[in-house]
Amino acid sequence: MKQSVNVGLIGFGIVGSGAISILTDRADSIARKVGVPVKVKRIADLDITTDRGVAVDKSVLTTDANEVLTDPDIDIVIETIGGVKPAGDFIRKALENGKNVVTANKELIAKHGAELLPLAEKNGVDLMFEAAVGGGIPVIRPMKVCLSGDKIVDIAGIVNGTTNYILTRMAGEGLGYAEVLPDAQAKGYAEANPTADVEGFDSAYKISILGSLAFNSTVDVTKVIREGITEITSEDISYAKKLGYVVKLVAMATLKGEDMLLRVHPAFLPAKHPLASVDDVFNAIYVKALGVGEVMFYGPGAGSLAAGAAVVGDVMDIAHNIMNDCNTRVPYTCADSRKMLGADAIVCKNYIRIIAEDNPGVLSSITGITAANNISIEAVTQCPLDGGKAEIVLLTHEAKENDVIKALAEIGAQSFDSKVASRIRVAE
Amino acid sequence: MKQSVNVGLIGFGIVGSGAISILTDRADSIARKVGVPVKVKRIADLDITTDRGVAVDKSVLTTDANEVLTDPDIDIVIETIGGVKPAGDFIRKALENGKNVVTANKELIAKHGAELLPLAEKNGVDLMFEAAVGGGIPVIRPMKVCLSGDKIVDIAGIVNGTTNYILTRMAGEGLGYAEVLPDAQAKGYAEANPTADVEGFDSAYKISILGSLAFNSTVDVTKVIREGITEITSEDISYAKKLGYVVKLVAMATLKGEDMLLRVHPAFLPAKHPLASVDDVFNAIYVKALGVGEVMFYGPGAGSLAAGAAVVGDVMDIAHNIMNDCNTRVPYTCADSRKMLGADAIVCKNYIRIIAEDNPGVLSSITGITAANNISIEAVTQCPLDGGKAEIVLLTHEAKENDVIKALAEIGAQSFDSKVASRIRVAE
Repeated sequence: MKQSVNVGLIGFGIVGSGAISILTDRADSIARKVGVPVKVKRIADLDITTDRGVAVDKSVLTTDANEVLTDPDIDIVIETIGGVKPAGDFIRKALENGKNVVTANKELIAKHGAELLPLAEKNGVDLMFEAAVGGGIPVIRPMKVCLSGDKIVDIAGIVNGTTNYILTRMAGEGLGYAEVLPDAQAKGYAEANPTADVEGFDSAYKISILGSLAFNSTVDVTKVIREGITEITSEDISYAKKLGYVVKLVAMATLKGEDMLLRVHPAFLPAKHPLASVDDVFNAIYVKALGVGEVMFYGPGAGSLAAGAAVVGDVMDIAHNIMNDCNTRVPYTCADSRKMLGADAIVCKNYIRIIAEDNPGVLSSITGITAANNISIEAVTQCPLDGGKAEIVLLTHEAKENDVIKALAEIGAQSFDSKVASRIRVAE
Repeated sequence: MKQSVNVGLIGFGIVGSGAISILTDRADSIARKVGVPVKVKRIADLDITTDRGVAVDKSVLTTDANEVLTDPDIDIVIETIGGVKPAGDFIRKALENGKNVVTANKELIAKHGAELLPLAEKNGVDLMFEAAVGGGIPVIRPMKVCLSGDKIVDIAGIVNGTTNYILTRMAGEGLGYAEVLPDAQAKGYAEANPTADVEGFDSAYKISILGSLAFNSTVDVTKVIREGITEITSEDISYAKKLGYVVKLVAMATLKGEDMLLRVHPAFLPAKHPLASVDDVFNAIYVKALGVGEVMFYGPGAGSLAAGAAVVGDVMDIAHNIMNDCNTRVPYTCADSRKMLGADAIVCKNYIRIIAEDNPGVLSSITGITAANNISIEAVTQCPLDGGKAEIVLLTHEAKENDVIKALAEIGAQSFDSKVASRIRVAE
């Protein structure tokens, strides 16, 4: 019988140091649960001089990831560098060397999970990634195991803390996007280059992973419909409130017949929706399944110890497998190739804000266009603006995406001055 | 290699028929995930004539539980009859016969888990009970596996749908407890004898299970502090709203040093608390841990298919273990004997409603009593009632339970007419 389970870490950054901190501080409790100690044998990072706030024996540190990947004593490799290169190569090598892998790398799993997970299985080892979605929130394993017998039909998640923080501040203080971003950056909630978060790439990776698990299919992340939050204005958020909604960046995966629709875009959520009160950097994932109905998982979407705790949970799960010689116990099931639907498959209510000449007949022209495009209107308001303009806000009933796009183009091409300032879909 | 995993069910009621329905309807998907079919071999119930709304071959049905317990082909016994007797005997016999067990039986696990779980381990089989707490909400496995490395310090849950439905109706419609109960019974949300729910026994079983898992300790369910909702009035709920709170039946487990405090009682929850918006028959479990911070699990606390889906998730997890010959992969860890603290360990804010003579000096006497008992006041309102009475509502700062009890006794024993109508603790 093994005397210990040995762990090597690659990437001693925020998540990695959180995981090491927990493995160290809670070593006794972890050893009791696993049956043998879980030892941190090696930590690789290009920078091994910066103090990470975790006491580790200096002899454990190395700048050479290969010392982790080739060490025959290491049972589990934790990869916490992020990104596709070189993380993917490291993980590939670890799996081929018969090492189990735990990663928090959403981009890599979203883009290459369909290659890496079968590779793990082929090599008789586990590849786990609980921290890749929702940080510390248990969601991957609950979906994969607890809801395994159920039929998941819909997922809606607030899975990006940066954008949720920005939208929460905008809503709370009536500020514009550009006014909040610098403060979010100063606080460390947004990166210097915020594109991956604010343009929805991060959310797209995460919903790809969730959708793949839910629908047992590979997902082409480039086919996820994706819009960011940079065009959202304080006016939109203010109208949302008046209409009984909040604006969130929502990542959605929906089963439509045998096909699936994956999308990330700002959405009006009814104020009563369980996701509507998820504020600041918190995340939540709301899942609909035929058996269970609706469940939601809520918690911190990021953070050193939060994501670190999720990594350690995976490490311990794998350690149980190692102690029982049953790695690859839960087989890979995402091998189907469901069709990914395009935006034209979206059918939903829409919020539309138009700035137009404040003349008689303008509202009638606009509603004539919507009617001609099969779009019926649930609510409309018109307010005068300075300079002879009016702001017209429409809340439509459910409409087909292509009808909406056509109507918006026609509204913008009227002989009178008329501009579509905003269009935000409603998620219910 | 096994050609199928065979399941026997005891108790073809609401949860049992939900589980069978999912195992039948989703047999193909389940077989793909497990690797072999999961077959329903036998269903035992004293009543095998009632139509359960699930198509089963009549030859599968039996009135004799022993035909499930002794069938050498059966790998997993699902127990869904509930209660301690005879369910406990059935489970004991199943485990001793080398059968894995899945149960939704919170009372049995709360009272006898400390005996049954080691018995399962001794016999090399699994005993799983995801459906015992929160119905279809994944919470047991997330706590046991995902948060396994973390240190859980606090749990607060709305874990009883019946009481939550009653309190939601009371809050929404300004009704009293006795006005809502019959309707809850008519709708099937409350039993004819509602005691187990409304007096907090059901919640006490569930928090015992969660506390035991969280703190790795046996829990004596008779030592859980327990108060029900029958004394809650519409006045209390109305005052809660005015003060920025909602009234919920909250089950709590808190680590205090090495000891633990487990309690179930109505509580004022701040309106902003994630649990405050959990309404109707929904359940939610809010967990604080040192690493992850705070996470919440939300969903349907009951229901045939919801709880059935949780049962099937356990069945499939065990099936993976069977296929990999690794049952008892995750060892029993709740063997510590932490001290269970009594109500005197409670320190919290309190809402206190007093009906007293509407005379000068009465408020001064009352606040004199609270001050003399080390209780400082955060808010106070006094309203005249008919008949020369006044209603005085105090919201205290944090106070020790014994100080509060002493003050309440003194308030009720004044020379002037003075009666403590309500006292509800605040949970934050």
